[in-house]
Amino acid sequence: MEVMQILHMNKGVGETSYAQNSIVQRKIISIATPIIHDAIQEILRSNNIESMGIADLGCSSGPNTLLLISEIIDVIIRAKSCNLGLQLSATTELRVFLNDLFSNDFNTIFMSLPAFYNKLKQEKGPELGSVFISATPGSFYGRLFPARSLHFVHSSSSLHWLSQVPPGLDSKAAGKALNKGKIYISKTSPQCVLDAYALQFHNDFSLFLKSRAEEMVGGGRMVLSLMGRPSYDPTTPTSCYQWELLAHALMTLVSEGLIAEEKVDSFNAPYYAPCEEELSLALKKEGSFLIDSLHAFEIDWDGGGDQELHHTFDMVGSGQKVAKTVRAVVESMLESHFGKDIMDHLFQCYAELISNHLSKSRTKYINLVLVIIKKD
Amino acid sequence: MEVMQILHMNKGVGETSYAQNSIVQRKIISIATPIIHDAIQEILRSNNIESMGIADLGCSSGPNTLLLISEIIDVIIRAKSCNLGLQLSATTELRVFLNDLFSNDFNTIFMSLPAFYNKLKQEKGPELGSVFISATPGSFYGRLFPARSLHFVHSSSSLHWLSQVPPGLDSKAAGKALNKGKIYISKTSPQCVLDAYALQFHNDFSLFLKSRAEEMVGGGRMVLSLMGRPSYDPTTPTSCYQWELLAHALMTLVSEGLIAEEKVDSFNAPYYAPCEEELSLALKKEGSFLIDSLHAFEIDWDGGGDQELHHTFDMVGSGQKVAKTVRAVVESMLESHFGKDIMDHLFQCYAELISNHLSKSRTKYINLVLVIIKKD
Repeated sequence: MEVMQILHMNKGVGETSYAQNSIVQRKIISIATPIIHDAIQEILRSNNIESMGIADLGCSSGPNTLLLISEIIDVIIRAKSCNLGLQLSATTELRVFLNDLFSNDFNTIFMSLPAFYNKLKQEKGPELGSVFISATPGSFYGRLFPARSLHFVHSSSSLHWLSQVPPGLDSKAAGKALNKGKIYISKTSPQCVLDAYALQFHNDFSLFLKSRAEEMVGGGRMVLSLMGRPSYDPTTPTSCYQWELLAHALMTLVSEGLIAEEKVDSFNAPYYAPCEEELSLALKKEGSFLIDSLHAFEIDWDGGGDQELHHTFDMVGSGQKVAKTVRAVVESMLESHFGKDIMDHLFQCYAELISNHLSKSRTKYINLVLVIIKKD
Repeated sequence: MEVMQILHMNKGVGETSYAQNSIVQRKIISIATPIIHDAIQEILRSNNIESMGIADLGCSSGPNTLLLISEIIDVIIRAKSCNLGLQLSATTELRVFLNDLFSNDFNTIFMSLPAFYNKLKQEKGPELGSVFISATPGSFYGRLFPARSLHFVHSSSSLHWLSQVPPGLDSKAAGKALNKGKIYISKTSPQCVLDAYALQFHNDFSLFLKSRAEEMVGGGRMVLSLMGRPSYDPTTPTSCYQWELLAHALMTLVSEGLIAEEKVDSFNAPYYAPCEEELSLALKKEGSFLIDSLHAFEIDWDGGGDQELHHTFDMVGSGQKVAKTVRAVVESMLESHFGKDIMDHLFQCYAELISNHLSKSRTKYINLVLVIIKKD
């Protein structure tokens, strides 16, 4: 699977679109917002900036995309008007770069820009200055931007996606299925599967850091928000149980004769939820960044935004919601491997398994928020 | 009509798409290519450039988009390897910005970038250096890019599109149809129509120059290629006869009861083909640029690429081809005013009128290619 050409959030604004099913990711952004505020204030405090470069890596396409940009612009304008000893002139230009893979639905983002620019002008008035929004498609596991052009880099719900399925998982090369009946790390996975995933994440994250180190100015900051795990053990449910249930749903379709078992055996998700130590180690080895802070947050599988659902314990509704959220993110990959036809049935089955699971255990995601500073 | 939100070349890669029907525009680019080469060599000769900013304004979406970028990169790499006393280091970065209106089909361009980057790497090898391609959607009648960030600006087949239908043509405001049965300047148009168009072009082109003047470095160059006319008279057939026939086709549909006549009376194309004097005057008044050269070329309505057609005088085929080329460009505007349903019939009728016209007269387009230099 060519991850970089296939992976994209579901396009458009329909029922299964990412735009309609990204409450969890929005929740994650809102949790990180105060951290983003602090990071930008620190950048403005220590740099004399005429033209500020800001990049959002893995921006996706939906309400979250411009919400984040709006937040960032807000902090900067407030900083301008309060003049808290910050190095910011009224004419400071903001260069905003939206990045995602080549197949991301940038058209939909662009169509919403005229209204966004109008709203900015109305709300922020003359203090706004010039804001230039552009899109740079490509993989962030490699160079995307000119040297020393960025002051602030943000990435949310993206860095847990690997550049490729770890080559060590290739069943054909091994002559046998290495991760039988599973699609990610599982309690039943052999150690070689765990090692292959950990190695791929280490390599990818290191390349990410090296690429950004060349693109960022000294004193620039990154806020990186990604799925993670609370302990060293990668088979802990908070790290992988959403994949466990998706594998279960796929195996149900195998038992119904709708998918060949080998198809499941040969699929592995290009995903990894690291622990804090793995991030720290990669950062230390790469050497261009200092860690400012690292926080871990628990996130409900359904984003926890709809209080009504929780009060009435509507597990069926919650299962549907979680399944839709996952579908909007992973469907492009599953479709390219298993075909389009089984998708509706697969995610119906998945929703039921999730409802059933949530009625017994309120497993949560762990979201890590890392703030790092580019050394001079 | 909100031109900036409606106007876009037909999307995708289907039969009526711009991607499939842009031979004329390709021909225009190929005619301008030696001029583009010279302009870039001059930029490299007089500037010491570490990071070269290049913008293509009105890039559209189709084979022409990346063809032009490829040409530009080619000139730069040849300049690097020949080292003709040019101020260019092996590590010079190229920052390429693709621009078009918000509704342009950028997704299709982005999907073709992985193959484009691979081809570049294979063909150009290590001399390539870093090329960063991004998209900046928005109207070029206003600021798009940071101050002093561009060295070379190109625009082909775009600047003849106005930012809006000239307000002076508003039939409602005038209390009567000012340009009855026509959709652009015509022999029957009253002087106020000619004046309204000329004023709108002057204002738009002046704003274009002012915006670019802020974005370009001293010594930077623009190559602007647009439809024009050979004489001061804007009713000359080379300037407007394609619109005359389209108005004729629309009036045929009026006579068939398919369109209300007032609908035609109230539509005017946001288009203007200027003469050389109008360009020179606006440039002189704005004052930031020097004229390096101004050429005029004749272009066959069908692009003249298919020699076979010309030998056999296949006017039916040629009429279809011209109608398709125009359709791919203007359909978004016509559809928003007249509705989707009549489009097939309208362009069939248009094709017949063109065939008939071409059998009597080989009217051509006039393409102007202007090279200007940003003063220090």
